[in-house]
Amino acid sequence: MSTQTSFSHTTADARGSRLTAREAFNGAVASSAIAAAFDLGLLRELADGPFVEVEEFAARHGVRVAPVRAIVAALAHLDAVSCMDTQVSRGPAFEDVWENKGYFLWLVGGYGRMLSEAGVLAAADPSTSVRDGGVIARAGKDYGAQFVDPRFDAVLDECEFTTAADLGCGSANRLIRLALARPAGRYLGVEVNPAAVEVARAAVRAAGVEDRVEIVHEDISRLAADRFAGYDLVFSFFLGHDLWPADDCVRALTGIRAAFPDARTFLLADTYRSERLTHPDTPIFTLGFEYTHAMMGQHIPSIEEWRTLFAKTPWNLTGFHPLDIAYSAIFELTTAPRLPHSRTAGSGSPA
Amino acid sequence: MSTQTSFSHTTADARGSRLTAREAFNGAVASSAIAAAFDLGLLRELADGPFVEVEEFAARHGVRVAPVRAIVAALAHLDAVSCMDTQVSRGPAFEDVWENKGYFLWLVGGYGRMLSEAGVLAAADPSTSVRDGGVIARAGKDYGAQFVDPRFDAVLDECEFTTAADLGCGSANRLIRLALARPAGRYLGVEVNPAAVEVARAAVRAAGVEDRVEIVHEDISRLAADRFAGYDLVFSFFLGHDLWPADDCVRALTGIRAAFPDARTFLLADTYRSERLTHPDTPIFTLGFEYTHAMMGQHIPSIEEWRTLFAKTPWNLTGFHPLDIAYSAIFELTTAPRLPHSRTAGSGSPA
Repeated sequence: MSTQTSFSHTTADARGSRLTAREAFNGAVASSAIAAAFDLGLLRELADGPFVEVEEFAARHGVRVAPVRAIVAALAHLDAVSCMDTQVSRGPAFEDVWENKGYFLWLVGGYGRMLSEAGVLAAADPSTSVRDGGVIARAGKDYGAQFVDPRFDAVLDECEFTTAADLGCGSANRLIRLALARPAGRYLGVEVNPAAVEVARAAVRAAGVEDRVEIVHEDISRLAADRFAGYDLVFSFFLGHDLWPADDCVRALTGIRAAFPDARTFLLADTYRSERLTHPDTPIFTLGFEYTHAMMGQHIPSIEEWRTLFAKTPWNLTGFHPLDIAYSAIFELTTAPRLPHSRTAGSGSPA
Repeated sequence: MSTQTSFSHTTADARGSRLTAREAFNGAVASSAIAAAFDLGLLRELADGPFVEVEEFAARHGVRVAPVRAIVAALAHLDAVSCMDTQVSRGPAFEDVWENKGYFLWLVGGYGRMLSEAGVLAAADPSTSVRDGGVIARAGKDYGAQFVDPRFDAVLDECEFTTAADLGCGSANRLIRLALARPAGRYLGVEVNPAAVEVARAAVRAAGVEDRVEIVHEDISRLAADRFAGYDLVFSFFLGHDLWPADDCVRALTGIRAAFPDARTFLLADTYRSERLTHPDTPIFTLGFEYTHAMMGQHIPSIEEWRTLFAKTPWNLTGFHPLDIAYSAIFELTTAPRLPHSRTAGSGSPA
């Protein structure tokens, strides 16, 4: 399986210059405006039509005109929109904002309270939950569809499987996509959050794939051996770091191997530590991801830490597939015997 | 009295280039880090000493190490600090962050919830209060001392007065400074917020100036005629826009004239509308100020709106003194008869 080295979002607009205080401040306001414009459907209407009439938009959505104008002004500050009298249309930077809108909703909507109270939270118990899981899920759906799904589909196209399990399936979006694209298969979602289990089951029924998708309520770090026989492929998105510290993670990955005795491949997708936060060209998402996880007391393993850890599990790292989210990749783990000169993470990883 | 035309914070680092989505996102994270570093006393220790040891700092302040490291990394992203092993010291951009730290605490700490939930709040009643008044007051003390007090002192030096009243005195900082600098005077603070009245009275006692500073609990928009005879000078900071809409403001300024029959000068300091939000060089504070006030349904008058309004009151605009906060000034209002060719706001106002 080929490894990909492109990493489009790392240096796209790198100028090598530092943000000034003025720019950081204006960036914080603009970030709020992007998240709000996404939330209100304003970005969608700008993307779909030639222009939006501010007053008409506000009336139709039951929102006040002044905040919409302020949101528009902050977007115009970025050149993301152009204003002509009462009409707003896409500006030269619209595409940049549109592509990345999910990251802003993730940061501003999902972690807004954490950003606001970081000084206080630094002293608080790290388990104090101040993130908004619902908003984070909604945001992830947007950037996932753009920056994850196409890469994942390409990797799946190279895999041989008829049955697959999603560990930590959340609302089951990924399983449903798969069940619709490959109707001959059989699929399993494992999810520890009871509310998410209900959402997932409802989504499965709504998509009409309940004949081939099952959702079970279990903790993937405590699966019984041979619990899920008959699954060729296992995958998991953006929860690998939750399984750390290292010893716990080794135990969990070993348990997953035992629980899925027939799995030949485990596609573990996650964001790893950049070790580049202080560089002026830190890509979008990275600084926010590492900042918020540090606040939550959550260790984000580096790529080297992952490689060291995989070597202690029954899984062999046989492929590395970068996602279009910065410092994020699908680790391809297999149960095949390790070949002496097989490709591993080193070859395709961004320096 | 001379009018000043310098306006140092408007174009200090203007590069004429737009923030990209990546930069706006990183700016939002860095803004949180600046506010947190200010809050935790980290910026103060960096300013005062050659370096800070991260682990020692965290232990001494009872905060976790990982969040402090994350805050440091975000500051390093701006070049505001440099990291050598476990030591953090001031970086080339430290001064920029240090000077502006109050604005970040104001935005991130004072209006963080508003930034996070702007989409929802756009539909909510504008009186829904989501700002943190305590943090805003603390932030204002920091940027006020740098960007307001020196200008105000210079204007006071040109005024003849022995008695002065601060309308909306808040915690009475400004009155106490004045009472300490000019102990022969007599001073009055008028404040509508009962909690602030208590804070102000305690601060007056703590400063040992209770013999010459009185704090009264009244609404400045509803003062009885001749209520406060014997005061030469009246001043008010950053609440003028709260008196709008225009008709209400005319009534309030007229009422203030009547309530202070002996006042010769009214120094009304406020931030006015920039009408430049969409420019790439929008200075720090401005975008945040107008964005948050639009969310609160609060009209921010332009300089022209103020001039038109003053003409409908018993006050004559006889001087205009820019503050070092962008688009903010002291309007010098007097009861002297208007001279045909007297200087007015036009001469000293930034274009």
